[in-house]
Amino acid sequence: MKAVVLEEQGVINVREVPDAPAPGLGELKIAPHTVGVCGSDLHYYTHGRVGKYVVEQPMILGHEASGTVVEVGPGVEGFKVGDRVAMEPGIPDMSSRASKLGMYNVDPAVRFFATPPIDGCLCETVNHPAAFTYKLPDNVSFGEGALLEPLAVGMWSATKARIKPGDVCVVTGSGTVGMLTASCALAGGASKVLISDVSAIKLAIAAQIPGIIPVDLTKEDLVERVREETGGWGADVAFECSGSPKSYETFWKLIAPGGAAVIVGIPVNPVAIDITELQATEVRIENIFRYANVYQKAIDLVANGKLNLKPFITDTYAMEDAQAAFDRMAEGRPGDIKLQITVKND
Amino acid sequence: MKAVVLEEQGVINVREVPDAPAPGLGELKIAPHTVGVCGSDLHYYTHGRVGKYVVEQPMILGHEASGTVVEVGPGVEGFKVGDRVAMEPGIPDMSSRASKLGMYNVDPAVRFFATPPIDGCLCETVNHPAAFTYKLPDNVSFGEGALLEPLAVGMWSATKARIKPGDVCVVTGSGTVGMLTASCALAGGASKVLISDVSAIKLAIAAQIPGIIPVDLTKEDLVERVREETGGWGADVAFECSGSPKSYETFWKLIAPGGAAVIVGIPVNPVAIDITELQATEVRIENIFRYANVYQKAIDLVANGKLNLKPFITDTYAMEDAQAAFDRMAEGRPGDIKLQITVKND
Amino acid sequence: MKAVVLEEQGVINVREVPDAPAPGLGELKIAPHTVGVCGSDLHYYTHGRVGKYVVEQPMILGHEASGTVVEVGPGVEGFKVGDRVAMEPGIPDMSSRASKLGMYNVDPAVRFFATPPIDGCLCETVNHPAAFTYKLPDNVSFGEGALLEPLAVGMWSATKARIKPGDVCVVTGSGTVGMLTASCALAGGASKVLISDVSAIKLAIAAQIPGIIPVDLTKEDLVERVREETGGWGADVAFECSGSPKSYETFWKLIAPGGAAVIVGIPVNPVAIDITELQATEVRIENIFRYANVYQKAIDLVANGKLNLKPFITDTYAMEDAQAAFDRMAEGRPGDIKLQITVKND
Amino acid sequence: MKAVVLEEQGVINVREVPDAPAPGLGELKIAPHTVGVCGSDLHYYTHGRVGKYVVEQPMILGHEASGTVVEVGPGVEGFKVGDRVAMEPGIPDMSSRASKLGMYNVDPAVRFFATPPIDGCLCETVNHPAAFTYKLPDNVSFGEGALLEPLAVGMWSATKARIKPGDVCVVTGSGTVGMLTASCALAGGASKVLISDVSAIKLAIAAQIPGIIPVDLTKEDLVERVREETGGWGADVAFECSGSPKSYETFWKLIAPGGAAVIVGIPVNPVAIDITELQATEVRIENIFRYANVYQKAIDLVANGKLNLKPFITDTYAMEDAQAAFDRMAEGRPGDIKLQITVKND
Repeated sequence: MKAVVLEEQGVINVREVPDAPAPGLGELKIAPHTVGVCGSDLHYYTHGRVGKYVVEQPMILGHEASGTVVEVGPGVEGFKVGDRVAMEPGIPDMSSRASKLGMYNVDPAVRFFATPPIDGCLCETVNHPAAFTYKLPDNVSFGEGALLEPLAVGMWSATKARIKPGDVCVVTGSGTVGMLTASCALAGGASKVLISDVSAIKLAIAAQIPGIIPVDLTKEDLVERVREETGGWGADVAFECSGSPKSYETFWKLIAPGGAAVIVGIPVNPVAIDITELQATEVRIENIFRYANVYQKAIDLVANGKLNLKPFITDTYAMEDAQAAFDRMAEGRPGDIKLQITVKND
Repeated sequence: MKAVVLEEQGVINVREVPDAPAPGLGELKIAPHTVGVCGSDLHYYTHGRVGKYVVEQPMILGHEASGTVVEVGPGVEGFKVGDRVAMEPGIPDMSSRASKLGMYNVDPAVRFFATPPIDGCLCETVNHPAAFTYKLPDNVSFGEGALLEPLAVGMWSATKARIKPGDVCVVTGSGTVGMLTASCALAGGASKVLISDVSAIKLAIAAQIPGIIPVDLTKEDLVERVREETGGWGADVAFECSGSPKSYETFWKLIAPGGAAVIVGIPVNPVAIDITELQATEVRIENIFRYANVYQKAIDLVANGKLNLKPFITDTYAMEDAQAAFDRMAEGRPGDIKLQITVKND
Repeated sequence: MKAVVLEEQGVINVREVPDAPAPGLGELKIAPHTVGVCGSDLHYYTHGRVGKYVVEQPMILGHEASGTVVEVGPGVEGFKVGDRVAMEPGIPDMSSRASKLGMYNVDPAVRFFATPPIDGCLCETVNHPAAFTYKLPDNVSFGEGALLEPLAVGMWSATKARIKPGDVCVVTGSGTVGMLTASCALAGGASKVLISDVSAIKLAIAAQIPGIIPVDLTKEDLVERVREETGGWGADVAFECSGSPKSYETFWKLIAPGGAAVIVGIPVNPVAIDITELQATEVRIENIFRYANVYQKAIDLVANGKLNLKPFITDTYAMEDAQAAFDRMAEGRPGDIKLQITVKND
Repeated sequence: MKAVVLEEQGVINVREVPDAPAPGLGELKIAPHTVGVCGSDLHYYTHGRVGKYVVEQPMILGHEASGTVVEVGPGVEGFKVGDRVAMEPGIPDMSSRASKLGMYNVDPAVRFFATPPIDGCLCETVNHPAAFTYKLPDNVSFGEGALLEPLAVGMWSATKARIKPGDVCVVTGSGTVGMLTASCALAGGASKVLISDVSAIKLAIAAQIPGIIPVDLTKEDLVERVREETGGWGADVAFECSGSPKSYETFWKLIAPGGAAVIVGIPVNPVAIDITELQATEVRIENIFRYANVYQKAIDLVANGKLNLKPFITDTYAMEDAQAAFDRMAEGRPGDIKLQITVKND
């Protein structure tokens, strides 16, 4: 079969690789249709590594995928050939202590697509556990299905926030994850969500979703704006999605007494935090690592029109042009949210 | 001043009563604009009592009210004459053990408008604590402001349910409280809300809100429909809003493993419950008594367009015609959701 | 190997059965040492069935077991031959939706020891998944290890109650589960636990644990006593462990505003419940089905002396005398809490 | 009446001050019996200020107090002259938004004993709201009653931690607050609590409570020890009570996946935090500011023998010798936990 292979740092080929074997116990064989390009894919391409994970042999890229079931393995119930599906890419050891507690995302034994030495799914067929595969309704496109993976981070963030109906939320950082988190917070019960950035174009894209209020940091003071929008009380929940140390200078001041902070962005270096600021409002802080148990709920929100993903799919490339997609992503155009690659044309 | 007075069981007069005194410490004097007619008002009119509360002297009716500040009492900050406001009608002893815990709604010392011998607010002026008065934004009408009171029951129900983003919910009973609860569940994070009733007209009104799915019990099996809508898993949250013993026959079967039941409706008699059904799914049951800390959040949802209250305001009467409003409510027309009375015309 | 076999309703034999095969992937072969006699074992003996589960072929009894590892299967880490262990008897499908959420106890696919047609573990060797096997510290006896299974029900009840430090709790019903639940509530943070029953001998056994306060229903009014012990406020948590419809007549009156009810006992028939009583205090109701994720925590509490199980092990029988243990249990002597059978003598 | 007055920085006099007036609505007049010396009292004495609070006129010291009711104000129920009581020293505006939510401790309007310009209660009589006064059972001494105030910080920390029965906890810092927090965690459901410090004498005092395990940081690696005590899993809850930046270097490594960190100690300067460490385990962080709704529960734990406060009361001084108590506290002897002053001798 054909696959998009990262041969080594900086070298991508679309070439033949061995076919996937027959699906094992509890597995489905799936033909990926659309696969999103993620920052981690890009980082393997440009740097050859992400943290402790190093590309030491050719690796198929891609982990944000939707596709079609082409074979049903033994022991699988509820799926049939032809089902349109999305794949949750991290497969935990379901017998681990963390998994037994329902926190399979923090199980250290998780195997994750396109994380060396595990291959990704930007290829023609792949085997995947049925327990981590989700059917797509007819009105959810393959593109939206492939976007479920980064959306799941926003869903998990909005879930761990424990938003109460009508809460006012704020998101710092209007990148892909920030926009998706803002959308999930809104669909997940907020009355309105302020989102801040220094990029006018990113804010304009976010503002296409009614209820998301853009705050341009080059023009406005975010703390002041949050006070105005909340009668001086502060936001019930603040999501840090920028990963920027600068954001932390004012972040805690955004939050109401007894409110919550959800830390989604990943700063490269340690951040200086004034503990007395945390204590003055008794803020509860939740930290995010991937997601658990949110795929089906995300699909339901998209299918019922409560999550509109269309503004976030910027462009789509054919599999043969995968390299162009990666190169464009490396450029980092400010108006680019998500680039996707189609393995199979409808 | 003029007031709508229940003289005794069955006798309503619109007549002069003494003016409200100057507002006390922490109080506002408010001129009510719109006041909703509630089932409890009606019950005092038709039966002269609600449970242990008996009308033994003339009582001003009404507790669902919006209006305008006409005088600001000593010690009040943040309000000025002319502010458009809604009033939360139950005033607890804020030093009670329940209030200190944030559960002021279950404080036995609560004083509630139009609960004998406490007068209501269907009159020209009334004093009310600023701490239980909420400003209405320009884009929230007096009619919507007066609807906040029954809406607060739905808000509290959706809050105590702890809905997670994308949960599937079901509401049994499409009366006023059922429709408002369904709306709050949807605004509060549900992907979709099924609502059941035997009245086609009520279901048609509820279905005006996109995302609310009507289930006509004369034609469909609710348990079966919930299974279909959830891939056999069950609803994450079920709200019992009918108060009907018949509803309880199948109610617990609607709920997914680990899901929640929220009991909003008030059955007249004890209900037979098969405990083993509750245990099989480990359902968590929350019980509702009025509401606490939800008015501001409800206002934010209405002002931001996430809650559409317009389909639920059926008709409006002038104060002089108050008796007609009560008589129509006593009729119980199936298409009537909320009747309101305007004290003051704009 | 030898096993205690229920041949059919009313007929128990201690006889040879085929040895367990070699342990499979992720499994341990364990030699049970002590096995408790449970009400469900007894019910299969006396009635040939429990609900929908019918004894249709000879079945090895027993599911409350501790023992010693005699062989380590492939893929198992962290165990070695000779480890003293306790076995959690219900094995879920860890890929099910309930298990992924951390609620493996409500997974309908659970396989449970001594639930037809699954054999129990009152025999010389048995294979068991390492993920559901827990090491016993030196200071936890095999008898205590075998008592962990019913204790786990109490642990789960105390966990789901979300006891806050210093809460006052009440347990209705001083049977085995009631006593163990009271012990767990006390170790789990309660300042004191009232326990009620009509049996003076059972109450005397419970009262051996300092902090458990017996209330003899033949002499005292429980509602009144709870009021006295809580300054009129009510219990923060009430555990219903009797399964008796009579208990429900006053049960809800025991609970403070905003408190919790935990339903542990299993009434045979539906119970009449006055919903308005639940609503007046907004009681939260948790329902219990077995347990999840509590074995290790229970072991830690026993090993550190915070749970004293010794008063609850009434008597121990040799394997050859298994029938005598079952017959005594069928007698239902009021002072009998737990009878155990030793498979292997030290 | 006599009072212990801080005239200005460094000058304490025991001298006559005007008597308290008659108690107002909802107030009690109380004769303090025992008053603890707190770090904030000391800081006003040695530095003349604590943060933004500056001693600009003579101020009565003391806020950790027990005493006896000597007069009952109008509107008070449930108290009589002669009742032995403890006083919760922070009086919020109960109509504030924070108070209505049950979080009266984070209400910015709180008035707190001995916080300039509010007088403290180290004097012969003081008026105090009945709603923040708690009766002491006969078996709780005045000394223990006065210790309830710092204990309340530990109780609140253990409450916000949401300890599950049998959790393993760790406390960094064995000062007064650390020891009391460890005691509350243990009474509040932990199976064992490790406590770390560099002071052998402080650890020896903490270790008098069975279940508290001292870890001497000059001899042992805390991360390693926690791993050993938890089979490699980590602590379910870690309480930071040292306020030391050094503690933060390893603090997050103590915590199990999905565990909780409770930040009690107050570092003087911002602390550098590696966000990726927080995310890897998805630690939930709770921050502590005083306490709310825990006094009665603390009293119940002391009265029922689950909290033993005796090891923590180091010495007691007569009111005339107040200066000696403050001077000794300024010395900072490592074996001193709590010094108390008796206003009235029994």
